[in-house]
Order: sequence, then structure tokens, then C-alpha cells
Amino acid sequence: MPDIRFIKRPTLLVDPNIVSRNIENMKQRARVAGASFRPHFKTHQSGVIGEWFRAAGVKKITVSSVQMAHYFASYGWKDITIAFPFNIRETQELVQLQKMADITILTSSIETVAYIENHLEKPVNLQIKIDCGAGRAGLPIQDAEAVKVLIDRLDKSSILNFSGFLTHAGQTYQARGKDEIQLIADQAHRDFQHLTDSIAKSACQLSWGDTPSCSRASMNGYFDEWRPGNFVFYDIMQYHLGSCGLEDVAAAVACPVVEVHKQQKRMIIYGGAVHFSKDFIEADAGFRLYGYLVNLSRDGWSGPVAGAWLSSVSQEHGVVRFSDEAVNNYKAGDIIGILPVHSCLAVSALREIFTTDGQHCPVMS
Amino acid sequence: MPDIRFIKRPTLLVDPNIVSRNIENMKQRARVAGASFRPHFKTHQSGVIGEWFRAAGVKKITVSSVQMAHYFASYGWKDITIAFPFNIRETQELVQLQKMADITILTSSIETVAYIENHLEKPVNLQIKIDCGAGRAGLPIQDAEAVKVLIDRLDKSSILNFSGFLTHAGQTYQARGKDEIQLIADQAHRDFQHLTDSIAKSACQLSWGDTPSCSRASMNGYFDEWRPGNFVFYDIMQYHLGSCGLEDVAAAVACPVVEVHKQQKRMIIYGGAVHFSKDFIEADAGFRLYGYLVNLSRDGWSGPVAGAWLSSVSQEHGVVRFSDEAVNNYKAGDIIGILPVHSCLAVSALREIFTTDGQHCPVMS
Repeated sequence: MPDIRFIKRPTLLVDPNIVSRNIENMKQRARVAGASFRPHFKTHQSGVIGEWFRAAGVKKITVSSVQMAHYFASYGWKDITIAFPFNIRETQELVQLQKMADITILTSSIETVAYIENHLEKPVNLQIKIDCGAGRAGLPIQDAEAVKVLIDRLDKSSILNFSGFLTHAGQTYQARGKDEIQLIADQAHRDFQHLTDSIAKSACQLSWGDTPSCSRASMNGYFDEWRPGNFVFYDIMQYHLGSCGLEDVAAAVACPVVEVHKQQKRMIIYGGAVHFSKDFIEADAGFRLYGYLVNLSRDGWSGPVAGAWLSSVSQEHGVVRFSDEAVNNYKAGDIIGILPVHSCLAVSALREIFTTDGQHCPVMS
Repeated sequence: MPDIRFIKRPTLLVDPNIVSRNIENMKQRARVAGASFRPHFKTHQSGVIGEWFRAAGVKKITVSSVQMAHYFASYGWKDITIAFPFNIRETQELVQLQKMADITILTSSIETVAYIENHLEKPVNLQIKIDCGAGRAGLPIQDAEAVKVLIDRLDKSSILNFSGFLTHAGQTYQARGKDEIQLIADQAHRDFQHLTDSIAKSACQLSWGDTPSCSRASMNGYFDEWRPGNFVFYDIMQYHLGSCGLEDVAAAVACPVVEVHKQQKRMIIYGGAVHFSKDFIEADAGFRLYGYLVNLSRDGWSGPVAGAWLSSVSQEHGVVRFSDEAVNNYKAGDIIGILPVHSCLAVSALREIFTTDGQHCPVMS
């Protein structure tokens, strides 16, 4: 850990012991479920932390952009899925990338297929993005006809290898607790069975990935591949969804205290939207939670301070509110920790990571 | 403008003609109100765009961090207010900064005063941060007693020059329309008169700054200094607050379209939380607005496309929804524009700016 005495500005801390445990647990869960493990690297975005996965036996990965694929290919990763609808404006970057690694791209667009088919130099794996209920990208899982049209189109291509379906059940982020997450996974499994029956492609590979379901649902035999990402650090959003315990949250942002208002039971920290982004958890009556307060120690952090929470963020400021006199334990110049609501966005905003055992982990720029 | 044909990824575009007009208008408004103009540079964060202010006669600026002060001091700015409660962990950086420029810091904390007094090498201007109703940093404007204690403490210091009060009426961001913004400014003016009367410091400098009130309220003779920042680009939040017209919004994010779902009347763009942050405007019934869709042209962009809006963002994805058949005008591979809800956070996320007349404006890293 960087000695707390020397922290000057908002600094992202990660506990490598928790990370290693999270990786090991998820790897075992995928194995038990009969799925191959292709973790998503968009959460940590760090070549150094990627090596911790390699040490755990991981050989294939998922990323969320062509740039991120280039970054991890430069760290020697040879089997990469870019889990974002392929952006044809980066076709030349894909051509370069294919010289470094085996790449899988995805789309649900006939126009995209037509374009890249004419611009690639060597074959690429292509998965069809399916929307299993998130309402974001992909063909609707019920629309077997559209899926069949796209597969037929791919079957005619000598350069695009149809390699199955990919879905992200983002609707698990609206679930409250394990039972609802299980229902979503069960429904998607049934819908995929129906889809593959309808198009007579029962051997089709199914790639699945979201941290809530991979962490908590029973999915034995449901899917061929798992691509969770956030689990590496987890965060308060995942804790609220029931995906993890607080002891599984591996990331905290160290922030200087700049003002303490004892009468108002709040303190102002140097740590705001440009460090955490602006994700929050909304509870009844407009209550918003941007993170939990923890106390830092030489080798990590405490559990959340009872009755204290990050209640708002502006560009550089955060406001921590207290329900009781615990505010009196803090003064300007202290360094406190915040368990973030969304660790992926904190990494993107802070762009470097320090481990609690003193390593510096650069993040892709 | 970078030729649209060559845009590959989310790219922040700025129209320098609108920026120049916004700067000129705000400079005139401050002059008419009898206030000196110290614009906040946290929105654009760019040394190049800073020069446009210099060309308009601006000589003193506001920043939101010690790092940002260093960055702009390196561009030759000599009079800089750091409008964030001073973080004593950056005292050595302040000492260095004082070798480059005249610096004004602020605090409301006796502990901070005691610390820096013992660690500075030369005098610094210090303003007392006052909370005039935003409920964030500063001493409450009603608490004349606490203000007096702090001033008395500063009066005993040979190195800390008490140089007035600074406030940020962040509550204007909760206002709906010009009348409410005016009420907030009027109230703050009265409260400041009461405060300075109470402590017998009527000659005290008052520094004021928020884009909604500086753009729309009548504040003749109210305050000595104005520090608005967002007005340089404005954004959809300011438009909704009534601070500006759509024709005053100087920033748009160019984004590739990656999927079009005509039946669902939505399209997926490459442009998400890591490009826009996650600020939104909430309307009735849980409707969330993350930005407006515009069409790009060779030298700028259209007005918002009627009935189309950025309805959600995840890490890299954005979903644009349409209320009608206008979705049929788009296809995968197109470049569209999004007028962002919060331009400051888009700059922080994207970290470089291209102007519509082809200049590249790096942003502090």
C-alpha cells in the first residue's frame, strides 16, 4: 500500500488478496457450471492485474473496445473477444489486431457483416449478439427469423466464421436479490433453447456474462462460456444486488478530508464525479448512495463506518453524511476510504491502481 | 473539424465561434453588473482554449484543483484562484505553485489555517468559503460568529492574507427557470449584506460564481467578482435550467452508430459512461435524458433531432431512442452527434477536444 501518509489526492486502492480469491471463486463456479471462463477485463483495464488472471490459468479474455483489445494483445493475450457491437470505422484496427491475436467480434447488423466482409484480410470469428431482455444491443431472443437470416448470411461468407451467440443479461442489474437473478438466468436458458431449436442449430455456442448471475445463480449446463468482469473488484452496487459480501469488495478510493462540519454532521472530501463518475444507488424518498465510508489501515480497510455514506458528488467534491457523532472522529487532512458504487467507472476515471501491498498497476490510457 | 469520414471513436467537438460569443457575452454581463471576471477553467481544462480567453482580455482565472493550477500556470496564467477547500496534503505543491503565480486559496477550516500557516514560505491570499445555501462546503452564511472567529484567526497571521468571501450557489442547479435563479441570487445578496454588517467588514470582497445565475439573473452591484465556468460550452443541463439557448451549446460528442433497431425505434452508439459520465436529467415517470441527438455537418451540427434522445448509457454503449420513424434515417457506421447533459464531465472523460475548424486542443492529463 502506498503509505497513507504520502497520499495526496484521490487514489484507487486494490487488495490483491481479495482479487485473487474473487478470481479463484469465479473460475471454480464456471468450472462447476460446465462453462469455459473468459473473464471480461473492462473492470481493471490493467496489464499488471491481467497477469494475476494468467497465473490463475486464464488463457482467453473479453474486452469492451478495439483499443482495449490492442492493449491486452500487447501484453501477450492471444484469444480475445471484443464484446461490443463491432464498429466498422475500426476495421483497419481490427486487421492490425488480427496479426497479434485470435479475435472474436460480434454484431447483430447485416450492414456491418456486409462491410467487414469486404475489408478484412483474414477470417475472423463472429458471434451474433442476442438481446435476452436487457433492451440494449442485439437481436431479440424471440426473433428467430431475424437470427436465421443473419446466420444464413454468415454461412455464405468465407471470411466470417459464425461462432455462436453472445448475450449480456444486463437486466440482472435491476433485480433485487438472488431469486430474481436466478429467474432471469432460467428464463434466458429456456429462451436460448427455444431459439436454437427454432433454427435447428442446437450445437451453437452460447456465451453468457454478467457478474450478478455468474456470482449467485445456479446455471449448471446452461451456457458454454462465462464472461463476467466486475467480480474482480465487485463494488457497492454488486453488494446491494446480492452478488457479493462487503468482504469481497476489493477496491476502495483513498480520499483526503478537506472540511469537517460537525454541527451539520457532514464532511467534504476531495473525491467527486471526476474520480467516481456519477453512478449511485437510489433508495426510497430520493435517498442517493454514492459509496460507503471506510477507515484505512496499514494493509487495507475497515468495514463500512456505520451510519456514514457518500451522499453526493460534484466535479471534485464529495459530501459524506453521518447519522451520528462519528463525524467527530475526522478532521481536515485525514485520508479516508470510499467503497465505490461502481468500480469499473472508478478505474476509468482514476486511471491507475495501487495495491495494498505496494504495487503500482498502470491502467490502459 | 476533423473530417467526419475519419472519426472512429467518441470524439469531443467544440465550435469556437459559439465559444467566443459565450466568452464575450459573459464578460459583458460581468462588466455591466460591476463585477470583475475570473472565469473558471474546470470546464474546458485546455491550455489552447485558455488562450481564447486571454485574447478576450481575461487576466485572472479560477481552477478546481492544485494540479489544474499548475497546468494553467505553465501556460503563463499569473493570477489563479483554486476554488476548492484547500487540501493540506498538497501544501508542498502550493509552495511550488507560488513561485509561478499569485495564488488565492480558500477554506472554512481553522485546522487547515493552522497547518498551512506553519508550512508556507511566502504569503498567500486566503478567502473564506461560505455556504450560501448549496449545503456543500463552507461556513453557513448565517453563522456570523464562526466567520468572525476565522477572520480573527487570519488577522493574527502574517502569512495568510484574508481576502474576502467566496461562495458557489450550487442550489441554482435545482432551480426551474429564471425566476427561481433570480430569487437565489437576491437572497444570497441580502444574506451577504447581513453577514458583512454583523462582522463589521463591509469592504469585504465577495466572489460569486455559478453559470445559471451569471447567465440569467440581474445582479448589478451584488458581488465583486464572478467565476462562472460551464458557460464556455454550456450543455443540455444548462439549457433545461434556462441558462442558455440550444444555439449557445458549443460542445457535441461525435459517436459512431453501431446498431440500428428500426422496429424498436432505437439505435446503439459507441458512446457511454466512460465518455459522458453518468449525469442525466430526470423528468416525470422516471424518464431520464443523457443527451440530445444532432446531425453533424461539415462545419458543425444541426439542432436536436425532434423526438430523439440518449436514453441510457452503460460503460461503452449508449442507447438513442426515437418517438417516430426518424430512426430509419440512420445506419451502422454513421457518425452522429450528442449534445451532452454535462459538458464539464464529458471533457474530463474524453480528455481531448477538436474544434469544428480543425484545431486539436489537448486537455490537462
